[in-house]
Amino acid sequence: MSAFVRALAQAWEKNDSLLCVGLDPEIERFPAHIAAAPSPIFQFNKAVIDATHDLVCAYKPQFAHYAAYEAEDQLERTIEYVHRTYPAIPVILDGKRGDVGNTAERYAIEAFERYGADAVTVNPYLGGDSLEPFLRHADKGVFILCRTSNPGARDLQDLEVGGRRLYHVVAELAAARWNSNGNCALVTGATYPRELAEVRAIVGDMPLLLPGVGAQGADVAQAVQNGQNSGGTGLLVSSSRGILYGARGVAGADFAGAARTTALALRAEINASRRGRQHA
Amino acid sequence: MSAFVRALAQAWEKNDSLLCVGLDPEIERFPAHIAAAPSPIFQFNKAVIDATHDLVCAYKPQFAHYAAYEAEDQLERTIEYVHRTYPAIPVILDGKRGDVGNTAERYAIEAFERYGADAVTVNPYLGGDSLEPFLRHADKGVFILCRTSNPGARDLQDLEVGGRRLYHVVAELAAARWNSNGNCALVTGATYPRELAEVRAIVGDMPLLLPGVGAQGADVAQAVQNGQNSGGTGLLVSSSRGILYGARGVAGADFAGAARTTALALRAEINASRRGRQHA
Repeated sequence: MSAFVRALAQAWEKNDSLLCVGLDPEIERFPAHIAAAPSPIFQFNKAVIDATHDLVCAYKPQFAHYAAYEAEDQLERTIEYVHRTYPAIPVILDGKRGDVGNTAERYAIEAFERYGADAVTVNPYLGGDSLEPFLRHADKGVFILCRTSNPGARDLQDLEVGGRRLYHVVAELAAARWNSNGNCALVTGATYPRELAEVRAIVGDMPLLLPGVGAQGADVAQAVQNGQNSGGTGLLVSSSRGILYGARGVAGADFAGAARTTALALRAEINASRRGRQHA
Repeated sequence: MSAFVRALAQAWEKNDSLLCVGLDPEIERFPAHIAAAPSPIFQFNKAVIDATHDLVCAYKPQFAHYAAYEAEDQLERTIEYVHRTYPAIPVILDGKRGDVGNTAERYAIEAFERYGADAVTVNPYLGGDSLEPFLRHADKGVFILCRTSNPGARDLQDLEVGGRRLYHVVAELAAARWNSNGNCALVTGATYPRELAEVRAIVGDMPLLLPGVGAQGADVAQAVQNGQNSGGTGLLVSSSRGILYGARGVAGADFAGAARTTALALRAEINASRRGRQHA
């Protein structure tokens, strides 16, 4: 088991939580006093992190939401803040990179050295040699896209390949070939619970990152029931907009308090469906 | 036909060239006087661009090579320099992005608004709705990964799906469903000439970007013969390290002159295999 998977398991335990908060800044949704401040993204993230650090197993900043604002510096500060202040909580940099070996090495430098992320998301379309520059960082986690949460996932991922689906093949490759350092994980949308159960059956106890809760409308109970591993863990149930901006889609003055309230409720909803917890 | 494809066709014609120069900075390979200067990447790129602008149909900076150096500003300056100085030459930002709709929109903002790129590369694994935020920019080009140049391409792209290969399906989707704005193009490695001919047969005259020439060892004549469209164009034959750093893999003091010499030779080699040119 890699250092990342061990840290994740400790965070699951410590905070009794499978909740991962996605840090996807949209300044247009920030309260005016934050939007007008210097480094508004970092200030917003810091307030959300301070309000939720004891309720989550990971944070997941999505790269595009920083790049579109030319805010790479605030992404760096956000990750550095989590590491310094709440070192038990790992940070997954969600960039879904994928390129040939020589270039993938540069993306690994970007994620692990420049930003200091504990894990990344990557795209498997280019095959094993495009993943290897990430996987060779044995202490880091590598979340490979498997069955994504969007409707278009059907276009390629659901195609039938030798009696099974393409995303089954990705799960099989991850379990059989790409996990020699014990640092593979998969991204499997919470919006497709049947597919989630199939992936879990293929990969044993491997961690699964589940986007699609909240704004994308997944059924939390069903996703947790179908996705959890034999120990009632193995999941990172990820919510971004639902935690950051609430039901109205716009953060109010007390957005940090609202994020905590939503995170508490979502953690409880997740835990109620975990193996061995239903009657606790 | 989109504004991008029109501009590309004009560049093919104007410079009598199907050569695309990849701008993949590796400061360790720069001459010492450039490596030690302020903004070394921009200075290096500028010299290469000035030395090759009349020999190419496009430039293609690869994002990871800037991000790993925290050099987004020099990427911006490079693209802005091409647009201002050589407005006939389009710039393709090679980031191979792919994410769900809401996030893909942010990546489109990054590429087209922040960096002002004329085209991007994208990954099709997430399906049509992940490409749409790029494709809806009708004046921009969208190069979708189809059959990549690396050995690992076999892992997923060559899997058999209903009597054909996965990369055939991507080519079919691009031709039949994703090209309603006439701005689709594909990435197909020059290293696999048979696959290239199959893709060309599926997509008609659609532009194909061919990485794999130079450092990756593709046979240029065979790639051009198999990849060109009915008019003897339709290709962007991309070379990066071979042009920038030469056969020794390290740029000398006259790297710009060497880049010009290599580009001249590669353009001639490409043109010798173009339809209607062999006996010219």
